[in-house]
Amino acid sequence: MSERPGLAVVRTVAELRRAVGEWRLDGGKVALVPTMGALHPGHLALVAHARTLARHSLASLFVNPTQFGPSEDFTRYPRDEAADAAKLAAAGCDLLFAPEVAEMYPAGFAAAVDPGPLARRLEGSFRPGHFVGVATVVTKLLLQALPDFACFGEKDYQQLLVIRRVAADLDIPVRIEGVPTVRESDGLALSSRNRYLSGAERRIAPELHRTLETVARQARAGDAQAAPQGRAGLLQAGFAKVDYLEICDAATLEPLTDLDRPGRVLAAAWLGKTRLIDNIPLP
Amino acid sequence: MSERPGLAVVRTVAELRRAVGEWRLDGGKVALVPTMGALHPGHLALVAHARTLARHSLASLFVNPTQFGPSEDFTRYPRDEAADAAKLAAAGCDLLFAPEVAEMYPAGFAAAVDPGPLARRLEGSFRPGHFVGVATVVTKLLLQALPDFACFGEKDYQQLLVIRRVAADLDIPVRIEGVPTVRESDGLALSSRNRYLSGAERRIAPELHRTLETVARQARAGDAQAAPQGRAGLLQAGFAKVDYLEICDAATLEPLTDLDRPGRVLAAAWLGKTRLIDNIPLP
Repeated sequence: MSERPGLAVVRTVAELRRAVGEWRLDGGKVALVPTMGALHPGHLALVAHARTLARHSLASLFVNPTQFGPSEDFTRYPRDEAADAAKLAAAGCDLLFAPEVAEMYPAGFAAAVDPGPLARRLEGSFRPGHFVGVATVVTKLLLQALPDFACFGEKDYQQLLVIRRVAADLDIPVRIEGVPTVRESDGLALSSRNRYLSGAERRIAPELHRTLETVARQARAGDAQAAPQGRAGLLQAGFAKVDYLEICDAATLEPLTDLDRPGRVLAAAWLGKTRLIDNIPLP
Repeated sequence: MSERPGLAVVRTVAELRRAVGEWRLDGGKVALVPTMGALHPGHLALVAHARTLARHSLASLFVNPTQFGPSEDFTRYPRDEAADAAKLAAAGCDLLFAPEVAEMYPAGFAAAVDPGPLARRLEGSFRPGHFVGVATVVTKLLLQALPDFACFGEKDYQQLLVIRRVAADLDIPVRIEGVPTVRESDGLALSSRNRYLSGAERRIAPELHRTLETVARQARAGDAQAAPQGRAGLLQAGFAKVDYLEICDAATLEPLTDLDRPGRVLAAAWLGKTRLIDNIPLP
């Protein structure tokens, strides 16, 4: 276990389990915040939430290759472990688990966790295999650390539902906590990928959140055309492409037409070469 | 928790976890023997092995619908919980977990564990989806009970490898133990399905094990035709069909031709409407 100022870093599952095992001796609870690094205040809100739940908090930093498609940004995904570790230490996180790829996927690795139909909707239909990769790596992280709680952002709302599904279905002994999205003052949801945006794109980007709010309000007022109008509006605002903008059942992500159950408005759209996602509850 | 003479029976995951949690207080280890019931001395050898490993032993009894194909024997699979519980009690097992289907697969259940390519060889090619069903239910059982050890028979050799693969790949904190096959005096491997055999079929059945031994001996002596000769011999002995009889790498179950690594001879063949499987190590 190497020490950074204020933050212990472990790189193997054996070290991780030893550290968590020591925490268990005092009877305190443990909360995990899985991340891919490139930490922003949204991640730190997860750490803050973890610290309200449990005496001991740990974050993982692993850019998981299996959840990226062949044409996606795995190789250029931002990596700066030293900066991330400093942010985690300042946020009061107790431990960082930062394994190499070979520690997570040793030679011969072959298994996968399929979350089922939920994983093939929305993001899943545009990123085939993405949620199998997410479900597999999160299952591993949960079983490596065996925390009492694991915290995920509502920014990746479908991911949150997928992980809840998998944890419940596989009987993983953990409580999955969703934490509200942290936004810039203009409404743009914080994301590690926002740094890909040019200055001009950054000025257009908040339109995604504004559009979701408009769509939600119009849908609630009975406008059946709210979602298609929202899609058109995004293109007009300068988005290059809208992968989806849908009003969904907040529990299953199946299309919601009657609005008789809790709903969620979710969208993914491209600004130049950068793909942004966001979602809000239907009021 | 209802009491049978000498054996406590629990039916819910919550009760199971409470019981195991009480065991954990004394620091003793826990060993699990997953079964589908219809217990024979092969299962009881698993319990005996479990008791050599851990202070506390439990068996599960669950006829898992998701590992049966649509034309397989799920509905007629033998069920006699009272007899099974008595056998487990006599064998010194401490607890039986016997959940209903709805406890294992509540409404909305959707996730699955895919063990990867190993699951599509041999049994997997004749029973599509079988090992996904096995891997999913065993993952659940392991995460419900969180035992230190789980014991499986070598009779289902491919299943044993599949479970080792999944436990390793998903970082399930358990040691998977393989236990040698228990046989009748004439060599027939004990199986809950042997009771399907007619008197005439039962007299032919030991030919499966004898053939595996012959094939293994001939292959070791350099006879490249050992496996095809074995398949022909089974048909001649009265088997209706041979699904496979192969000499495989004992670790990957890929075909083994050079015999330069540990090998295993595995077969599945039909006697009338009953499908028998067996396997032995290559000497």
